[in-house]
Amino acid sequence: MGSAPDASDIVAVIERVKESGCDDVRVSRGKSRTIIGLLGDVSQLDPVELRGMAGVVNVVSVFAPYKLVSRDNHPERSTVWVGGVPIGPGTVTLIAGPCAVETPQQTLEAAQMARAAGATLLRGGAYKPRTSPYAFQGLGEAGLRILADVREQTGLPIVTEVVDPDDVKLVASYADMLQVGTRNAQNFALLEAVGEIGKPVMLKRGMSATIEEWLMAAEYIAQRGNLDIVLCERGIRTFETATRNTLDVSAVPIAQRLSHLPVIIDPSHSGGHRDLVLPLTRAAIAVGADGVIIDIHPDPEQALCDGPQALTGSDIGDLARVMTLMPAVTGRHRTPSAMPSDESIQASLRRTLEGARA
Amino acid sequence: MGSAPDASDIVAVIERVKESGCDDVRVSRGKSRTIIGLLGDVSQLDPVELRGMAGVVNVVSVFAPYKLVSRDNHPERSTVWVGGVPIGPGTVTLIAGPCAVETPQQTLEAAQMARAAGATLLRGGAYKPRTSPYAFQGLGEAGLRILADVREQTGLPIVTEVVDPDDVKLVASYADMLQVGTRNAQNFALLEAVGEIGKPVMLKRGMSATIEEWLMAAEYIAQRGNLDIVLCERGIRTFETATRNTLDVSAVPIAQRLSHLPVIIDPSHSGGHRDLVLPLTRAAIAVGADGVIIDIHPDPEQALCDGPQALTGSDIGDLARVMTLMPAVTGRHRTPSAMPSDESIQASLRRTLEGARA
Amino acid sequence: MGSAPDASDIVAVIERVKESGCDDVRVSRGKSRTIIGLLGDVSQLDPVELRGMAGVVNVVSVFAPYKLVSRDNHPERSTVWVGGVPIGPGTVTLIAGPCAVETPQQTLEAAQMARAAGATLLRGGAYKPRTSPYAFQGLGEAGLRILADVREQTGLPIVTEVVDPDDVKLVASYADMLQVGTRNAQNFALLEAVGEIGKPVMLKRGMSATIEEWLMAAEYIAQRGNLDIVLCERGIRTFETATRNTLDVSAVPIAQRLSHLPVIIDPSHSGGHRDLVLPLTRAAIAVGADGVIIDIHPDPEQALCDGPQALTGSDIGDLARVMTLMPAVTGRHRTPSAMPSDESIQASLRRTLEGARA
Amino acid sequence: MGSAPDASDIVAVIERVKESGCDDVRVSRGKSRTIIGLLGDVSQLDPVELRGMAGVVNVVSVFAPYKLVSRDNHPERSTVWVGGVPIGPGTVTLIAGPCAVETPQQTLEAAQMARAAGATLLRGGAYKPRTSPYAFQGLGEAGLRILADVREQTGLPIVTEVVDPDDVKLVASYADMLQVGTRNAQNFALLEAVGEIGKPVMLKRGMSATIEEWLMAAEYIAQRGNLDIVLCERGIRTFETATRNTLDVSAVPIAQRLSHLPVIIDPSHSGGHRDLVLPLTRAAIAVGADGVIIDIHPDPEQALCDGPQALTGSDIGDLARVMTLMPAVTGRHRTPSAMPSDESIQASLRRTLEGARA
Repeated sequence: MGSAPDASDIVAVIERVKESGCDDVRVSRGKSRTIIGLLGDVSQLDPVELRGMAGVVNVVSVFAPYKLVSRDNHPERSTVWVGGVPIGPGTVTLIAGPCAVETPQQTLEAAQMARAAGATLLRGGAYKPRTSPYAFQGLGEAGLRILADVREQTGLPIVTEVVDPDDVKLVASYADMLQVGTRNAQNFALLEAVGEIGKPVMLKRGMSATIEEWLMAAEYIAQRGNLDIVLCERGIRTFETATRNTLDVSAVPIAQRLSHLPVIIDPSHSGGHRDLVLPLTRAAIAVGADGVIIDIHPDPEQALCDGPQALTGSDIGDLARVMTLMPAVTGRHRTPSAMPSDESIQASLRRTLEGARA
Repeated sequence: MGSAPDASDIVAVIERVKESGCDDVRVSRGKSRTIIGLLGDVSQLDPVELRGMAGVVNVVSVFAPYKLVSRDNHPERSTVWVGGVPIGPGTVTLIAGPCAVETPQQTLEAAQMARAAGATLLRGGAYKPRTSPYAFQGLGEAGLRILADVREQTGLPIVTEVVDPDDVKLVASYADMLQVGTRNAQNFALLEAVGEIGKPVMLKRGMSATIEEWLMAAEYIAQRGNLDIVLCERGIRTFETATRNTLDVSAVPIAQRLSHLPVIIDPSHSGGHRDLVLPLTRAAIAVGADGVIIDIHPDPEQALCDGPQALTGSDIGDLARVMTLMPAVTGRHRTPSAMPSDESIQASLRRTLEGARA
Repeated sequence: MGSAPDASDIVAVIERVKESGCDDVRVSRGKSRTIIGLLGDVSQLDPVELRGMAGVVNVVSVFAPYKLVSRDNHPERSTVWVGGVPIGPGTVTLIAGPCAVETPQQTLEAAQMARAAGATLLRGGAYKPRTSPYAFQGLGEAGLRILADVREQTGLPIVTEVVDPDDVKLVASYADMLQVGTRNAQNFALLEAVGEIGKPVMLKRGMSATIEEWLMAAEYIAQRGNLDIVLCERGIRTFETATRNTLDVSAVPIAQRLSHLPVIIDPSHSGGHRDLVLPLTRAAIAVGADGVIIDIHPDPEQALCDGPQALTGSDIGDLARVMTLMPAVTGRHRTPSAMPSDESIQASLRRTLEGARA
Repeated sequence: MGSAPDASDIVAVIERVKESGCDDVRVSRGKSRTIIGLLGDVSQLDPVELRGMAGVVNVVSVFAPYKLVSRDNHPERSTVWVGGVPIGPGTVTLIAGPCAVETPQQTLEAAQMARAAGATLLRGGAYKPRTSPYAFQGLGEAGLRILADVREQTGLPIVTEVVDPDDVKLVASYADMLQVGTRNAQNFALLEAVGEIGKPVMLKRGMSATIEEWLMAAEYIAQRGNLDIVLCERGIRTFETATRNTLDVSAVPIAQRLSHLPVIIDPSHSGGHRDLVLPLTRAAIAVGADGVIIDIHPDPEQALCDGPQALTGSDIGDLARVMTLMPAVTGRHRTPSAMPSDESIQASLRRTLEGARA
């Protein structure tokens, strides 16, 4: 450092790069500096690895290290279908329900409220990852059964979290979409397991994940053969303590530009306070999110998990108005309820949707 | 720590608190812990100060340390008038113009574009704080003269930055509103100087300022007798590198709840990229911001400062559409042009505005 | 907000708190504010839950939410024994070895270098969590077998990472200490699994975990009956990009004050560059860490993982000097090699160690 | 984005770069990507500027944008002399004293304690930048006079903060070294003013400044002709709330590698708690800092500013021991008191020092 690399350093770097399978290497020698440009496949090359080689001052990554989820190789944005409900371009999908499934009654009421607000998918947690081992951890399979019953009664397909690779099969046998939470965003064993099970996955952004790391996590799922992935921005950790997390709305247009996957926003967990949910929902739709996922509870003060951020009866009308009004301002419409299962009707509806956004 | 405070520690803390002028102190002794609640005036007491006293485990601030800008003492949200243009509840104000004033021609063209997009105030920098001493630092007073000429030609009142307390008087003699930038958000000498000059001030949030620190900075201005302050969220520093800064849209409803001052958003400096400006502008208005401030340049590729984030001719129609459409979705309307100087007409327009938002 | 809570709000909060099992509640009513102090057991109460109740302005946590790992209930600092090697007060333990096990030869050479530097425990990864699915993921059980062979040859007990709850039993059958990595710091299924297996655990701090969250993660392990936990600070995520992570040396004295568990530092993964390892090792010991864990590789330029941060042959002498010199400046000594298995001799050595630090 | 740049885009970028004065541009065209390497002088080119041009996916800065403070052009590390006291390689300098000058008696006592601990420079604030306008702001010139008197009595040269460009001349007429605080780290008017006054400057790192931005701030001072700059790391803002700031010890070896300027650490303001000062001081010296600056107060519980982090009488012996013991472990010694003013004796002492570190 501080001195120019000598020729042998440069040769060593080039060799190392070529060994990794990158076959297009360009060297530009300046008076005191040399730039080695890697234009071939660098997927086998960890930039951190190169940094320790003699003479290397810096290694910078210009192109994306992910492939399957990259928009470069798949310019058209994707739609993910969950139990007949589309999430993707042209529509704005509302997913709503209780943070945690507590009782059949509470779940059914929350689902009915969700529906009244315009939701076409039901969220609800049976397995809850909690910071404290002393906090309510969810009902487990009993919770899944409640969700399945409520789906029967309301027609709303189910989105629910899975936290342990061993549970993936069980959860997938009940759920229409599996959720991977922020604390598991780099739990690679779990990512691989949901990649193999072949159900749609909602992947929350890690609490301190860069957009690139988030897409790499999606790549883990994709690499196991599952491209039905919806990305969910839910706030990142910053120095600000007035909110639970800082909602990063810019991540939506950026992730949509870098990846073909749909991107939604969770305004409940980011803000952490009921008063912020509607403003952040409006912002989410306005910035272009393909949907929102919102906590709803019939009696938030008795909720076993995250009550303070749950919308309740008196908010449903306002949420319904937001869901009716806001999609239009970005040239989209609220996602209709689950499509009929008849394949030919579905196909025709898809064509209509595609027409709408063309 | 780890052991209970003894009685003399508790007495010492109480004495210290009372010396500071806080006259309402409540002590709750538990088995192994004691809570000392301060319910009186704690403005002379720095929480950090108490933390070092014997027996003190933690000091937590429950109530706001600011007063003049607090909404507690001023429940109605304020409107700040800039050269006859209101910024505040009921309206959404567009401030637009070049990041830096370069030439009369460039500034006039940018102002005309701004106007076409619906702007009622012109932004433009004559003094530019730049990370590098080798970057363009602005035209200084020559730039102010250009701005004044363009105001004459277009009727748009001027918002411009001041970076040195010594320049405040000069800048205020040209400007309709003074801007304090993110790097000077805790430059207390500058805050006091703009507090004394009696012109409206736009106070950008510090790059790593909490919402509380931002409001404390506003309190510095207010304390010198100037309450015509508009808060401007412009993105905060986080670990994410895909954007220049992370726009914290949640800060808008929170600052509006904590303070009576108007709050606007700068979508240009937060995102740092032209493609993000319109989505972030939509999000800003949707979340409830009282206005937006946007970089516009007739020829961004030749801009001497922040060209990549400036909107240009081809974007003006889109911005105008956003400014027409979006305010309505939050029950507001775009701010009309500067009010006539006749006091009675102004008063009548104010009444109309107030009616609109009631 | 902005108005005083009325009596029914206060009653509702108190009831909620008492339902949770907290039986010591003190109310201090001021003119416009009321403080409700909770002095009883709040372990069943999530502070976030209270924030949404009517009239609640803020909820602040003064006391620690963890119990088993807290120093409050266990004032003497603990020593964790790993295959006869102590980690805890009075000594400074060096754990060293390759980031990833690649071949028997590479692992043995790295172990011999580690030993020469003063290490008494061998690190080495057989299961590697990698940001990219295309990067080397470790040898799995074949790697564990190599580690066991090298332990036989060098006498160094083994520390190795486990990433999947399903692998815990297998990994524990080879390892002397299980490592939970930064990406799994809130993988609760994994924490519970290592808590049940009854082997010592090294718990790395999450990339963006507060010290409190880190201790809560340890509490998950402890709650399953395993208190043989060593905390490892390895750098946190910040805005600074010059280092891979920002090493938080202050976390060591703070965690040692809040918890009785030993705390060590990983200077390799925090800095991410070989040149930083020795300065950060000196800082780690000087600040009071109970040990350090360091990457060593016989040929870093060929390493399959994190080569740039690995020390190599030419650095061993310097590391050995640091390990000889630095512990003394904080009144400690380098940890001796594994204790003989004879219980009575071990007990006598423990007494000697305890004498040394008294 | 997502499509290859066409030839005219590439030409436009090259033209723009050349206009800025960078005369060495190398183009490497790949199948779908093109790398444009800039090997000439890029000091007039803001990387952000290029990012908005058509076809540009990313702009990355490989080389440092600062020159005068860069170690590239000045491989030998510099020593800055303050009233005859050296700060730089080979020595470890202790600067100590009260956070704020309150009374002659308090300042003299703090100075005597500082001296007893081994300090060779006296710190003390007459102008205090405080987050709250209601907090004690310092005694101003009266404080400077007290400092000058105490210098007379103790022989300790003075380091004191300046916060307003207008005060620089006055403060420099009393002080031996001017301090620029963290809140003013990008107050360019102030940086230029201290650059012109020709007194040594201690430049604290901005609360959220990258190491590069910190060096750019130093470049502002250097560019006005003043290279007597000492960099001071004082903790950065992160999500962690257990400390006032997160002390970034890694910044010391990195800044020393990138710049020839001396780098010291402030363990008082980073930790924010007395208990952390000694551990962080040991870490600071161990990591290689050229000095430390520490708050000392004869009666911290009565301090008007930052009492909880001030060392006091009972800590002086411990600090003295640290200052005696720790420099040796990194092959240095504690800085001796101010050099005699006789030039020839000074020169001889300098030679001795240089011998010591060779």
